[in-house]
Amino acid sequence: MIGINTIKFIRSLRLKKNRRLDKKVILEGFRLICESINAGIKIDYIIVIENFESDLLNQKQFRNQSIKYCSKNNFHKISDTKNSQGIIAVADIKKYSNQSLDEIKNNNLVILDGIQDPGNLGTIMRTSVWYGVNSIALTHNTVDPFNLKCMRSAMGAHFYLNNIIQDDYLNIINYLKNNYKNIYVADMQGENLNKIKSNGNWALILGSEAHGIKSDFKQFKQITIKKFGQLESLNVSVASGIVMNHLRNNS
Amino acid sequence: MIGINTIKFIRSLRLKKNRRLDKKVILEGFRLICESINAGIKIDYIIVIENFESDLLNQKQFRNQSIKYCSKNNFHKISDTKNSQGIIAVADIKKYSNQSLDEIKNNNLVILDGIQDPGNLGTIMRTSVWYGVNSIALTHNTVDPFNLKCMRSAMGAHFYLNNIIQDDYLNIINYLKNNYKNIYVADMQGENLNKIKSNGNWALILGSEAHGIKSDFKQFKQITIKKFGQLESLNVSVASGIVMNHLRNNS
Repeated sequence: MIGINTIKFIRSLRLKKNRRLDKKVILEGFRLICESINAGIKIDYIIVIENFESDLLNQKQFRNQSIKYCSKNNFHKISDTKNSQGIIAVADIKKYSNQSLDEIKNNNLVILDGIQDPGNLGTIMRTSVWYGVNSIALTHNTVDPFNLKCMRSAMGAHFYLNNIIQDDYLNIINYLKNNYKNIYVADMQGENLNKIKSNGNWALILGSEAHGIKSDFKQFKQITIKKFGQLESLNVSVASGIVMNHLRNNS
Repeated sequence: MIGINTIKFIRSLRLKKNRRLDKKVILEGFRLICESINAGIKIDYIIVIENFESDLLNQKQFRNQSIKYCSKNNFHKISDTKNSQGIIAVADIKKYSNQSLDEIKNNNLVILDGIQDPGNLGTIMRTSVWYGVNSIALTHNTVDPFNLKCMRSAMGAHFYLNNIIQDDYLNIINYLKNNYKNIYVADMQGENLNKIKSNGNWALILGSEAHGIKSDFKQFKQITIKKFGQLESLNVSVASGIVMNHLRNNS
């Protein structure tokens, strides 16, 4: 059974400043924890509610993991979800601290500017990993990628990424100019995506739905998804998938 | 200022059974309400918090609307979001009650089987409208499309749809067999989406991420989005966008 100090520690990780300080993150939910272990992340320990279905823990992912039990009452104190499955892990994110743009090494890159919804951010990270992107760069006004909701919607994508970088947008723009030939900005008034053929690696910039993309980013090639019906815009994570699917199949 | 009966009525609309009974739905948030009015839905009245920025109400969408004010204290009782913008509308959904599959008239159609996350459902509805789909059919084990969270993520898409139909999956399968030549199921083991060319209208079936698609639906052509990287699957709303983008650009 876990004690009061573990409960306090886990609750402290709900705050970004503590996640940064301790270089630890919370993973909640069975599938997220399995996917994260598959991705090779180091799990410090896993906490399960006292009546947790023990069959699930027989899966190969849970061999050699440190499993701790927790009373129902205490589990509610550490859980962040309404209908919790009763399983939480604490994982190490030291790997992602103090990373710089120079570590990206000119692979396909996704840049996110000012995305505030952690569910969207996580879904874009998941989509990026599906399309073989292994680095993400976020401007400082983007939500923290280690936010609990972002972790849940990313489904372990974090741990397949080599680089999760947060930097000033001007540094990101400089880096792009010096390292990429194909730089695309998803926007409402750009060239039809269907006409884009990228030779070699690319960088894709996506902005917030509410505020759009910073004007400084508009110096790069703006591309637009063709609309066939109504409504002003697509959800940004859906747009990210459509653009990445096109770029990967046409480069 | 609104009274206790209005507060009680709005709170009652959080429950599916009351929404069905009264044929009313709650719209919360400025952008959602604007988009819904653009789409032509009938708004009964709009409630704004007492200190609501009056400039916003000068937009053309708000002319001829019935605007009621509400104290901060009472607004918290009717709001469903943490950081509310202080604006809620009650809209009429009589149009969507008792609709049947026969009303679809063989246009492009999206069928959703067992999608439980209202955010995903709303995002798929929004994406469908962007791609000019004007009917959606949902199996009975799918979350209620008039759920508040679904309304928010759909961004007014509901009201561009002619038909939002909930029916038994066997009825849906029969309807598809009798009316469509091109019926696609997004699944993990199907033909590469890039090879699909649909002549004429199509029906696209998407299932829940957790439970997959019902086996009865697998009699139709299974199609798969090509993976370039890692992770088991894409988010279902992202997948819906990638498939619809392909079908609309290749038919």
